[in-house]
Amino acid sequence: MTGESTHHTTGYLASDEFAAMLDRLGEVAVRTGLNVLPGQQVILTAPLHAVPLVRRVTEHAYRAGASLVTTFYSDDQTTLARYQYGAEDTFDTAAGWLAKGMADGFREGAARMAITGGNPALLAGQKPDHVSRASKAASIVNRPAMEIITNFDINWCIVAAATPEWAQQVFPHLPPQQALEELWRAIFAVSRLTGPDPVAEWATHNAILHRRATFLNDARYAALHFTGPGTDLTVGLADGHDWAAGAEKAGNGVVCNPNIPTEEVFTTPHRLKVEGHVSSTKPLSHQGTLIDGIHVRFEAGRIVDMQATKGQDVLARVLDTDEGSCRLGEVALVPHSSPISRSGILFQNTLFDENAASHIALGQAYTKCMRDTEGQDEASLAARGANTSMIHIDWMIGSGQVDVDAVTADGSHTPLMRQGEWVVEA
Amino acid sequence: MTGESTHHTTGYLASDEFAAMLDRLGEVAVRTGLNVLPGQQVILTAPLHAVPLVRRVTEHAYRAGASLVTTFYSDDQTTLARYQYGAEDTFDTAAGWLAKGMADGFREGAARMAITGGNPALLAGQKPDHVSRASKAASIVNRPAMEIITNFDINWCIVAAATPEWAQQVFPHLPPQQALEELWRAIFAVSRLTGPDPVAEWATHNAILHRRATFLNDARYAALHFTGPGTDLTVGLADGHDWAAGAEKAGNGVVCNPNIPTEEVFTTPHRLKVEGHVSSTKPLSHQGTLIDGIHVRFEAGRIVDMQATKGQDVLARVLDTDEGSCRLGEVALVPHSSPISRSGILFQNTLFDENAASHIALGQAYTKCMRDTEGQDEASLAARGANTSMIHIDWMIGSGQVDVDAVTADGSHTPLMRQGEWVVEA
Repeated sequence: MTGESTHHTTGYLASDEFAAMLDRLGEVAVRTGLNVLPGQQVILTAPLHAVPLVRRVTEHAYRAGASLVTTFYSDDQTTLARYQYGAEDTFDTAAGWLAKGMADGFREGAARMAITGGNPALLAGQKPDHVSRASKAASIVNRPAMEIITNFDINWCIVAAATPEWAQQVFPHLPPQQALEELWRAIFAVSRLTGPDPVAEWATHNAILHRRATFLNDARYAALHFTGPGTDLTVGLADGHDWAAGAEKAGNGVVCNPNIPTEEVFTTPHRLKVEGHVSSTKPLSHQGTLIDGIHVRFEAGRIVDMQATKGQDVLARVLDTDEGSCRLGEVALVPHSSPISRSGILFQNTLFDENAASHIALGQAYTKCMRDTEGQDEASLAARGANTSMIHIDWMIGSGQVDVDAVTADGSHTPLMRQGEWVVEA
Repeated sequence: MTGESTHHTTGYLASDEFAAMLDRLGEVAVRTGLNVLPGQQVILTAPLHAVPLVRRVTEHAYRAGASLVTTFYSDDQTTLARYQYGAEDTFDTAAGWLAKGMADGFREGAARMAITGGNPALLAGQKPDHVSRASKAASIVNRPAMEIITNFDINWCIVAAATPEWAQQVFPHLPPQQALEELWRAIFAVSRLTGPDPVAEWATHNAILHRRATFLNDARYAALHFTGPGTDLTVGLADGHDWAAGAEKAGNGVVCNPNIPTEEVFTTPHRLKVEGHVSSTKPLSHQGTLIDGIHVRFEAGRIVDMQATKGQDVLARVLDTDEGSCRLGEVALVPHSSPISRSGILFQNTLFDENAASHIALGQAYTKCMRDTEGQDEASLAARGANTSMIHIDWMIGSGQVDVDAVTADGSHTPLMRQGEWVVEA
């Protein structure tokens, strides 16, 4: 980047070891994550700082037979320029023509890969009204493409690249270069890339996750019951819910891992059958604001009472997005001993943080977590309990102090997790 | 760009002077070049190395009232990866979904800005069959968007950013850093940015170009006659041709400068009325190959005989693209004293090189260089002489040794240029 590179890359980030790990991440993203088909196009989004990883992903995609890789870069500086210099009446604008083009690309067979890693605090200083208007405008035009993803019609995958601004948010007390190195090392470690054969290790990990999902699917539980400090929550499960985990077969027949890393076993709650109160166990980073100390009460699936010790106004706006934004679209079980939890790092990025603890998500449900969806429209799925919203925001409620029971239709309880760990052998 | 920046930027490229010139280029690109409307979206394409200029352009666009700037970056390394690792049967693939999206964006009102500056020799070592198949596939899907540009339906602008690989091609004997500096300085100078008020200087320059175009339009000449070493060429002009130059009003009503820099006064030749032979006066850089020493003979508008001392096979493939690729779509007059000619630099980039000498272009004609086009379809315009093709390749035939006469319908000659300079006072 002519004229603006102001620091010399040295140490770990200039080492062969780093280059080899980055290549492993690219290979796992393409082979394990996306599992791109020969002849398939790939639509890739990434922050500008992820150029080196984009290049590794692109090479592995072409080696695997991809016909064309098209990358869309986001640049924090130009994103900020909009808020700094844009005119008041322009924030409801979104690139509908591009969103439609991408959705067409998916319908015509393209796979979707996202590299995440933008600065989580980027928009923290901007006018909340501008941020939420722009975000809503983008959500509306992106909805058709997002539905293809949430319906799991195509193979897709998200991986992360460390960026200087994100690293500084995660490690505010380290010098910038060291923070960046630490974040990269953490990503490599929790993405299970440090062993002798990461692709094989991922196959083993996927098998363990599948056994847990199969156990839960065979049992056909009616609800989960979470108890812990500040938490006594019953989450009813949708009629014909399906537990998913790790690698899954997309609608186009491709078995892919949508998230690298992933530690969760997850399904669809019933939008009308969530009761009780729950406390967050980790902060939630949303559009640059940390929301912390969340405590909410549900009645008949709906949040009826909410408070947060930090970021309460942002949370209130989120809940107010649409009809479905104050109901649940996902519930997920993650052991407290997961590599991400053990790292002790708050990544401030859902891809990682949701794999550190059991969690629930406000908003849109995943159709792939429902059985027998063939020919069912949104209304039929809603009648079975699947929630609809423009948002999908994960929010951590598990910890080493939280227990989870499964509840059958007749009301009997089976322990699933004690002190955050699985107690069923699956 | 984490992990891959291997050189420290120092000297001119780290100076305030360079930053100020880059900002001027961004301002002229937005204000003089694109003249973006308040509320208008901007679709921007750029090579990755142009990030600093993209940021200047984006800021000026938002300051001018743009509602949203969307940038698509190209990366030479990932482009190369396709040719290095792509499977044999994948090179006819193009991102049709994206091309369609961009065309929709233009139809919905977006303006188009392109930053050029990729490595002109990037694909020189790749299999010509793969390069031409990929290029043809891209041309086909990009055609609707290209027609919007060639029809001048919307305001658009091309500017250039120096990149290390391009600079090395232009200045092969300089060290990389110095080559890059020299190319940037050349771009700033020939883009008329070094005076006290570039936007005002561009207004004056545009006025001079307009006077010349008005003179030629008032005269309604039937043909141009080029004579010089190896050249005796009569270029008949299309019926109802229109001379254009500098800032022009696009179909959406916006007065813009499609090229920064521009020195040419240009119009549409008659596709059936070009006779004689012509020699190139500068090399032509096409997809990484330098084509030089071109000599061709026209009969009834068609190239019937062709030779080149360098790159003849590439030129042959270009001429073989489609029905219209061996006929002319543009003729342009440029004084030998233009700043680009005086710089003595072969930029190997059409944006600059076409403004160093009078030239002709193989392929597609510009509808904006035809009068009374309202309601006329392609067949009507073709009957008036406008050529159609997937390509538009400019090719320099002027020099300090070339004279140009205007020829009226009754065969009388008027001197326009002698030894490459204008001899009419307009």
